[in-house]
Order: sequence, then C-alpha cells, then structure tokens
Amino acid sequence: MTGTLTPELESVVARAAAAAPAFAATSPEERARAIVAVADALEDAKAHLVEIGMRETGLTEARLSGEVTRTAVQLRLFADTLVDGGYLDARIDYADSDFALGVRPDIRRTHLPLGPVINFSASNFPFAFSVMGGDSASILAAGCPLIVKAHSGHPELSDATAEVAAAALAGAGMPEGTFQLIHGREAGVEVLKDPRIKAGAFTGSIAVGRLLADIAASRPAPIPFYGELGSVNPVFVTAAAIAERAGEIASGYLTSVAGSAGQLCTKPGFVFVPAGSELPDAVAAAHAAGELPEHRLLDPRIARSFAERRDAILAAQGVRAVIPGGVRFDDAGQGWATPTVVAVSLDDFRVGKEALVEEAFGPLSILVEVPEGTDLAALMPEFYEGNLTGTLHLSAEEATGETANAAELQALVSAIAAQVGRVLFNGWSTGVAVTPAQQHGGPWPATTNDASTSVGTSAIKRFLRPVAYQNAPDAFLPAALRDANPAGVPQAIAPAGESKSWGARWR
Amino acid sequence: MTGTLTPELESVVARAAAAAPAFAATSPEERARAIVAVADALEDAKAHLVEIGMRETGLTEARLSGEVTRTAVQLRLFADTLVDGGYLDARIDYADSDFALGVRPDIRRTHLPLGPVINFSASNFPFAFSVMGGDSASILAAGCPLIVKAHSGHPELSDATAEVAAAALAGAGMPEGTFQLIHGREAGVEVLKDPRIKAGAFTGSIAVGRLLADIAASRPAPIPFYGELGSVNPVFVTAAAIAERAGEIASGYLTSVAGSAGQLCTKPGFVFVPAGSELPDAVAAAHAAGELPEHRLLDPRIARSFAERRDAILAAQGVRAVIPGGVRFDDAGQGWATPTVVAVSLDDFRVGKEALVEEAFGPLSILVEVPEGTDLAALMPEFYEGNLTGTLHLSAEEATGETANAAELQALVSAIAAQVGRVLFNGWSTGVAVTPAQQHGGPWPATTNDASTSVGTSAIKRFLRPVAYQNAPDAFLPAALRDANPAGVPQAIAPAGESKSWGARWR
Repeated sequence: MTGTLTPELESVVARAAAAAPAFAATSPEERARAIVAVADALEDAKAHLVEIGMRETGLTEARLSGEVTRTAVQLRLFADTLVDGGYLDARIDYADSDFALGVRPDIRRTHLPLGPVINFSASNFPFAFSVMGGDSASILAAGCPLIVKAHSGHPELSDATAEVAAAALAGAGMPEGTFQLIHGREAGVEVLKDPRIKAGAFTGSIAVGRLLADIAASRPAPIPFYGELGSVNPVFVTAAAIAERAGEIASGYLTSVAGSAGQLCTKPGFVFVPAGSELPDAVAAAHAAGELPEHRLLDPRIARSFAERRDAILAAQGVRAVIPGGVRFDDAGQGWATPTVVAVSLDDFRVGKEALVEEAFGPLSILVEVPEGTDLAALMPEFYEGNLTGTLHLSAEEATGETANAAELQALVSAIAAQVGRVLFNGWSTGVAVTPAQQHGGPWPATTNDASTSVGTSAIKRFLRPVAYQNAPDAFLPAALRDANPAGVPQAIAPAGESKSWGARWR
Repeated sequence: MTGTLTPELESVVARAAAAAPAFAATSPEERARAIVAVADALEDAKAHLVEIGMRETGLTEARLSGEVTRTAVQLRLFADTLVDGGYLDARIDYADSDFALGVRPDIRRTHLPLGPVINFSASNFPFAFSVMGGDSASILAAGCPLIVKAHSGHPELSDATAEVAAAALAGAGMPEGTFQLIHGREAGVEVLKDPRIKAGAFTGSIAVGRLLADIAASRPAPIPFYGELGSVNPVFVTAAAIAERAGEIASGYLTSVAGSAGQLCTKPGFVFVPAGSELPDAVAAAHAAGELPEHRLLDPRIARSFAERRDAILAAQGVRAVIPGGVRFDDAGQGWATPTVVAVSLDDFRVGKEALVEEAFGPLSILVEVPEGTDLAALMPEFYEGNLTGTLHLSAEEATGETANAAELQALVSAIAAQVGRVLFNGWSTGVAVTPAQQHGGPWPATTNDASTSVGTSAIKRFLRPVAYQNAPDAFLPAALRDANPAGVPQAIAPAGESKSWGARWR
C-alpha cells in the first residue's frame, strides 16, 4: 500500500491491519482473559527475564523484579477496566418528540478501537514502559492490534518478553497479528508513516518524541501521537515544613533522586528552599549517614550525556556541591554514578538558567535558594514549561489552609497545577501509582498531548474514538448501547422531554 | 512575548491571557449564568441579527431564525452541562496501605481549563458554528478565554453578534478579556502561533483546516487543534428498502440535498443503490411533484467552486442527470443554484473516481448504481477516507437482523462505523441534534482529531486537561475533589483494598 516498507515490515503492518476487525470483535471478557494470561506468564518467567534485564540495563534485581510485578498488576487492572466498560462513556438519548429543536432521533454513542497502533518503548523501564508495559496494556485492552518498537537498550529482553506475551495471547485465542515486535528506529519511523497505522505511543526524550510527533502530524492522514517526554519536576519547600521535619524531607529527597540512578522522568530536578535554610545541611547529613551505592547508568550514551550535563551544572556561576557525587566509566564504556546534589542562589539560577534548567537524566538535583519575599508562583512560568509533576512541602499547620501565607500558597498551587499533570503534597514524585485517578502527563514538553495519561485506567481512552448510532435497530447496535445492556456497562441515559428546561435554572 | 503580533493583536492576546486565571476561577454557576445570559440576549436580538445574516449569507429567514434558536439552546445545554460536572470525570482513589504495589497515596483527578483558545468560525452556519456557536459555547463553558476569528462571509453579523455577547458576559460579571473578536485570516494565524494560546477550533475546508492544523502542530509548543473539515456522507439503500418505500426515501433525500442549498458538511453526497432500482425515477418524480426554489449560494467564491465541481461531475464518463439543476450568476457575482442529482454505474464511478469522489459543496448528489453481488462493505475503504456520517436504509424486515442478508448488512455497518463518527439508519445526515450522545466528528479528513466531537455535550472536553492531586490537604483541593463534594459533581471513588483482586476473575 505504501511502497516504502521493506517486505518484512510490510508483512508486519499487513498482519496488524488484517487482525484489526477480528481483534475489535473479541468480547471484553475474551480480551481480559488474554491480558491476564500475559500478566501471569510474565510473572512465571520473572527470574529468567530479570536476569536478562539486569545484564542489559544495569538496573538492580530488586528494581526489575518489582517492575515485573508492577507490569503484571497494570495488565490485570486493564483487564478489569475493559470489562467494566465505564471508559466507553456509553450514552443513550432516547428519541424525543418534545425536543427543543424539533423531533430528536434516538442517538447512542460509544467508543470503538482506532485500529493498529505502534508503541515505541522506553529505555528506563524495560518492563513497565516497554514491550508489555502500560502503553501496550492499554492498546491491547482497547482492542487495537499492537506493534512494539523495541528499545535498543534491551533488545534481548524485548525478544524474550515478546515471546512470552505472544504465546499467552495465542493461547488465549487472540487473532494472529494482535501483537508483533520490531527492532530499529528507522523501521519504527516507516511503520509510523504507514496509512494503516492509526496512532502512536512513545516514552523517551524530547528530541526523539518531537521528531516522531512531527511525523505523525505531517502524514497525509495525521494520527494522534502520545509521547511522554521530558520533565524536571520542580519542588517547593516552605520554611515551616523545614522547621518541622528537615531530616525527613532530606532523606526522602535523596532516596527519590538516587533511585534507579535518577533515570526517571519523575525525578525531582529542582527544589526551591528558603535562602539560609538548614535543608542543604540536612541533605548532606542524610547522605553522610548512609552512603549510597554506585549505580550503573542504562547505557554509555546516557552516561556520557549525564556526565556532560553534570559538568556544565557544576561549572555554572554560584553552584556549590552539597553532595559531590560523580561518574566514572569502566573499560566497557559503561558509566557508573553516585548522586550529586548542588545548591545555587535564585540570582545565580537566573544567570545560569540556560545551563541549569534543562533535564539532567541521572542522579543529580539542584537546590535553589530563594530570598524571603520572592513570589513563588511566578517562578513556575519564569523557569519552566510543562512538567509531569510539581510538588509542595508544607507544615501541618500550613496544610490547614489557615495560616497567614495561605493565599500565597494557594497561588503557588494554582501556578503549579497550570503547568503540570500531577500536584503532590509532602511527598516525592518518583513512584507513580497505577490506579484509576492517576495522571501521568502534562503540558508540552512533558508530553505531546496533555489531555491524556500514560499511567492509570484513563490511558485506554487514547486508543478509542467515539461513534454515534442514530435510530439504529437493536440488532445492529454494539452491545454497550443496547437497551437490554447485555455487557452490563454504565449507560448515561438522557430521557425525552428534558431539553425544554435547559439553562432555565440560571436566569 | 512573541514580537510578531501587531500592537492590536498583542493586546487581544494579552487580555485573553490575563483573563485566564480569573475566568478559570469563576464558579460553575457563575459561568452558567453568563452563558444563559448570552443565549437570552441573542434571542432578544434575533430579528436584527437575522436581517443582517440574510443579507450577508443568502440563507433564508426560516433557516437563520431556526439557527438562532439552536444556538441559544446549545448555549443553555452547556450551562447545565458545566454545572452538572460529569465532564470533569472526577476520580478519588483513597490512600491504600494494602495496595498491590505497596502503599498507595491518596490521588484525586479532575480537569482544568486549558487557557486562551482561538475559534475560527464557519461560513455556512453564521450563528451555530460562528461567533457564539457550539465551539464558542464549549470553550466558554470549559472556562477558557475565547478569541473568535470572524468568518469573512459575514463580518457585519459577526460584529453584531459579538456586541450582544460581550455585553451579556460583562453584565454577568465575567472578567474583561473573556471574549474577543478579531477579523482576518492572517490575524487568526498569528494568534494561533502565539505561545499564550492553548488550543484552536475550526470549522471549514480541508485545505484551510490542514494549514491551520499544521501550524498548531509545528509550534515550538504544539497545541491541540480541533478542525471539522470535509465530508461526503455515503448512503447505502437496500433493494428491500426501496421496494418498501421508494417515494419516502426519494423525497427525504431530495430535502436533505437541497436544504441550505446543500452547503452543509453533512449533505448526503453519494447514495449507493442496486443497479436497475426505481430510486432514480422516484427522485425525479419527487422533484417534479414540487419544484425546489432557487437558492443563493453563500458567496461568489463558493458558487464558482460549486459550478466548477458540478461541470466536472456532469462531464465524467457515464454520468447522467436525474435532476439537472443549475447554477447562474447575477450581476453582483452571486451564484444561485437549484439542486442537481446525477446517477452513475459503479464501473463508471471507478473510472471517474478522481473527478467524482471529492466533495461538491452545494446542492448536488450522486446516485451510484451497484450490480447485484457487490461487496458493499468493501466500497467504503475503496472510495472514501474519513467521513462525519454514513447511512444505511433498510426494510423493516431487514432491521430485525434476521434476514438472509443479515451478515452482509452487519459487515456493512461495521465498515461504515470504521470510517465515520455517526452511523444513521433510515434517516438523513443533515440536521445534527444537539444532545449528550451526539458525535459530530470522524477520521481524517472529516476532522483533524477524531477522538472529539464539535456538537453535543462532550465537545467541552476538548478544552480541558486532566490534573491529579496527590495527598493534597482538603484546603488545597479543587471543589470537585473534596470529600464533602460542595460542587455536587459525580465522583468515581476507588476504595482501598481492591487492587489485590484485579484480574482474578479472568483466570
């Protein structure tokens, strides 16, 4: 159909396209069983998969083992979600001869799967944002054939995961072509351009995400592209919070920065603290109390890039090391890091903004010391574009909303909310709960599409589109829209006769 | 901030940006009162506005008067919708010490307005898709400051409507800058590029819609762009339906094609009928029974373009006139049309596809005569990209789903649904009910974003984005997420302890 695909890729895309009607026609229960079978199979293969993952990524056994569990849990959550059917937002407007604009026909609306989707997997979550990660789980739950582009950082693990998943899906009777794995960025780009592909998902860098988003938007028929890109996750800590629990904040911070060698899109990159506060000393003390082990970075490219960013930050005017940390390279070219925390005054942050504000992907974070009387809410738009998260640490008294600075804190919360997808209080942004209300997204460049989430049950909505049926005979309606509601999904019903009073309450 | 705006446009955008926090902070009830005040004021000014509209657009008094009513009704519907709050999709996940992946924090998710939005209004609905049309209603309901780019086809009406609306909004206490009107395509483009603008809406041609969508996607910070573009709305009529009610189908069809001089994005452009059926004769007979009046086309450019498309279609191989119709131009250059209906065999449709399949914006429609045994479902992807609607006319017996051709009809319904936003049965696609389950959208090029609708209550979702609050003290939560639920909105609550059984039913 396109003439640009290699024979191998052509057959991958053709298989996905051929599978689309059959996969869309599977019942919710059938898809749920298939997805749970994948989850169970991944947990059965955990020891084998984690061993490959440790070798390919340098992440620890504990981290990877927990990530397999997380991956299985989120697959199972999507199995329940897709059968529950609330995400279909099924609506039924009965025919209404008394409608305000003349006779209204019977109109019923549900959501249908988009068709084949390509998912570009991430380097830093070799399970949870990779071959059978959250994006893949929501794509399959939605009923869309899935093509995963493996990340070059863990090709062997990708193949091994794909083998487990493909067997489970086939065993559960899913159509051939429901799930396929490809390797190579160029192959991914060519598939993304193919007219049979109806959406893309991605987790990775701003540069690559932008490249792919531009390709998706400039196709003859543009498609949605859901990229989760970069974030520096600003944090604000009040003087009262530090007075109340400096040690607890310092150790939580250090754990959040150091975990997974800081290679997380939710790592707290900047912490605004009152100038002269004891928090920098508390961070140094927390570090001295229990030295953090050296951790391998994911791959040599990431390590070199982190080392460069770290050097640039340490060289900026007024930057002082609170915890020096470091990066060393072994004979194989792999980089090994210990956490670095630096401090800088707000004035020097302004001077060095260009060098300091860009994401440093690795275990480094910056304390910004802010003079009393600074308008904290104004710092968000001054320094940042969109972010995945923003955090505020308050004292117990401030949390009541009744302290003298309450209005200032409210303004800060509003300013944070205006630029992020998740606002945290008295916690740390790493560790994203997989749960119905989760929002993992945010304004550009945190994501390419801030109306969506890549974690939590709403993630399924990215791969569906609404379709209305007007005056459809029952026999030709999707199950979710039938009067008898055989699928048992939530149906929002608009009765006849209500339209004549629309708006009347507001006169 | 950008350096590219004229001083006048700079002040328009600056006012919208300045209004954003204050407008977002208005209560739902305050916004509802303001929107209902606009609806009431438009109806009070109806006679004056309709008079301007008739002169500028050539549409009839009955049509424009009905359109003012529709516009007022949809504003009032959005007033109720925004107070109801279901569109906020408020979710509360209580903290869960027994969560499958370790302790889950308290997470609560709602939707916040995007910020200033520009809406490019349409030529063919000078009220309902124009200054205070459906897009504007949903933008204001969402709490986003609105800049409308007036359509060049009705500038005076746009100014008059804006004056009425601005006075009503100011009278209801909305912030200065909540609503502004600008003129000129170049001005619209410059505003769309401004970083303070957070989304765009548009109703119009594929060419202009694509241009604007590409601008929105290629900004340094891309924004969502909701364009409703072109559609030819294929219709399929079975032999049994024709045998049952040829006359009724013919007259309904003719009314749908002729209404508003066919200048509707939902006009049925193609009707597939069995070769040798009596429907063409029935259409000619319906036409002969009551001559349709000549109707002025919206503007000389549209009229010239329609005349060219009509000539090309009539010149294509095998095309015969069922109703010849015509276009004439008056001394002022305005075009006046009577409806044209042509018929062509499926074979000749294939030969002339390039000339025939493109939208003819005006009162013209094509009957395609299909040999017995043709796979109807395959015609959708063979001839069409995305469409707003697709229609099937069945006999009463076929509607039971128990006739010999039921599987074939099911396949056709699935094929239609795969390419449209609304599937109709035994009706006509013009006349789009403004109601909760409505879906006015469809895959490219029907729209730039087929996950959304521009008619119906879901339209408000286009101008909101989700934000989650983690462990937020009650005092810092939006009203929709508080335990006491002072706003009285639907809240979906995930209790603690449920995660350990996720997926267990599907083993």
